[in-house]
Amino acid sequence: MNFNRRNFIRNAAAGVAGVAAIPTILAATMPEAKVKLKKDNYPFIKKGDVILFQGDSITDAGREKEKELPNVHSSFGPGYAFLIASQLLNEQPDKELTIYNRGISGHKVFQLADRWQKDCLDLNPTVVSILIGVNDFWHKLKHNYDGTLEKYETDYRNLLRLTQRMLPNVRLVIGEPFAMAGCPAVDASWFPEFDSYRAAARKVATEAGAIFIPYQSILNEAAKYAPAKYWTADGVHPSMAGCALMAAAWLNAIKK
Amino acid sequence: MNFNRRNFIRNAAAGVAGVAAIPTILAATMPEAKVKLKKDNYPFIKKGDVILFQGDSITDAGREKEKELPNVHSSFGPGYAFLIASQLLNEQPDKELTIYNRGISGHKVFQLADRWQKDCLDLNPTVVSILIGVNDFWHKLKHNYDGTLEKYETDYRNLLRLTQRMLPNVRLVIGEPFAMAGCPAVDASWFPEFDSYRAAARKVATEAGAIFIPYQSILNEAAKYAPAKYWTADGVHPSMAGCALMAAAWLNAIKK
Repeated sequence: MNFNRRNFIRNAAAGVAGVAAIPTILAATMPEAKVKLKKDNYPFIKKGDVILFQGDSITDAGREKEKELPNVHSSFGPGYAFLIASQLLNEQPDKELTIYNRGISGHKVFQLADRWQKDCLDLNPTVVSILIGVNDFWHKLKHNYDGTLEKYETDYRNLLRLTQRMLPNVRLVIGEPFAMAGCPAVDASWFPEFDSYRAAARKVATEAGAIFIPYQSILNEAAKYAPAKYWTADGVHPSMAGCALMAAAWLNAIKK
Repeated sequence: MNFNRRNFIRNAAAGVAGVAAIPTILAATMPEAKVKLKKDNYPFIKKGDVILFQGDSITDAGREKEKELPNVHSSFGPGYAFLIASQLLNEQPDKELTIYNRGISGHKVFQLADRWQKDCLDLNPTVVSILIGVNDFWHKLKHNYDGTLEKYETDYRNLLRLTQRMLPNVRLVIGEPFAMAGCPAVDASWFPEFDSYRAAARKVATEAGAIFIPYQSILNEAAKYAPAKYWTADGVHPSMAGCALMAAAWLNAIKK
């Protein structure tokens, strides 16, 4: 068989138009299993979109940082961004998506700003998903960082404004920073101050018209079904279950 | 708040019995998004299951091999096993699953057999998922491996029989080895001989009463929607989209 672009286009045209490819593929090859055909689940995602995941260690997930390729496993690492990106690439092969992960462990908002030209604007993303803030608070407790809540909010607002000015058609997805009490890294000294950082993220997201993912509420609700440590090992970094829950929440949010 | 085991059990008991936790969590915290409540999707997976993923580089996915912990990102690497495991852990927090990845890059069936005591039996798995075979063929072409189709089939059959003898209640999931023509690593010299390896995997899976995942058929069908290279970079190793398709197929197969 000869798999080339022309064959692809011909075959795709002969396929089931308007129905998501993956359920159709599984229904055709695994008829004994239960497969529901459904329409495009993610109209928020447009053909040709360039999607960028940005943030700290939660987004970084141990990705390699030499090649930093789009749509490649090792450039994602095993985290929530990998889960979201691989599912979008799988479910929407016709959309020809380009998806990057550029999270860096330990980063705070001002450090995103420092590398925003290279690690955001130069990529010309059409969708930018950001999760940042836990280090803006945590590093004050643990690493003598002297930033304030006001700096976090102001830096974050300025970063989003810059992004929208330079990329007028960008769609923004902002994740709520989260911390789970009762886990090794998160003691009572976090609260209520950390809650103000969550509120600031929601505020700047709302101002920017971004989709906001309420990860803290989601994880609090999840803690009714399994202990907090089941969802985050240390209270800050999500477990595999926590990553999958974050990915489900992200994908769910863009179904609106 | 005090997140402990007792609170967890009380909260879980107060939760929505018989309904999968995750849609319930998302419905409670993201009411504006579309969330469908549904029952346990995976009755094949039992409470307390120990699930083991075994295979070659496709399963390995660059996992770390010092600690080899269950339910931990870095011990999985960003591949299809991570996608399946994180989704199961997320969707079934009440089942208290323990999930291992012990795939090793380059391995053939006889190499699985060599390490089966340590990397399977000692873990006391209740579910064993195996994807092995592409190297049994490929290394004949590329690395002067002198194994035959008969050796592959016999070694595989013996491995499954040993597994079922030592773990009488084990549930087996066997993946079909696959190769996509028109990609850099897969030329015409692969066919039709490679097809016999696929057939042998199906044969031993059927004999053992395993769930069989027809990855080759699934990828062939997927190639109607995007070029083969979209699903596998070189024809052998799945892309991110390919990994997510494999994971969807695996999870779909156990819904039966």
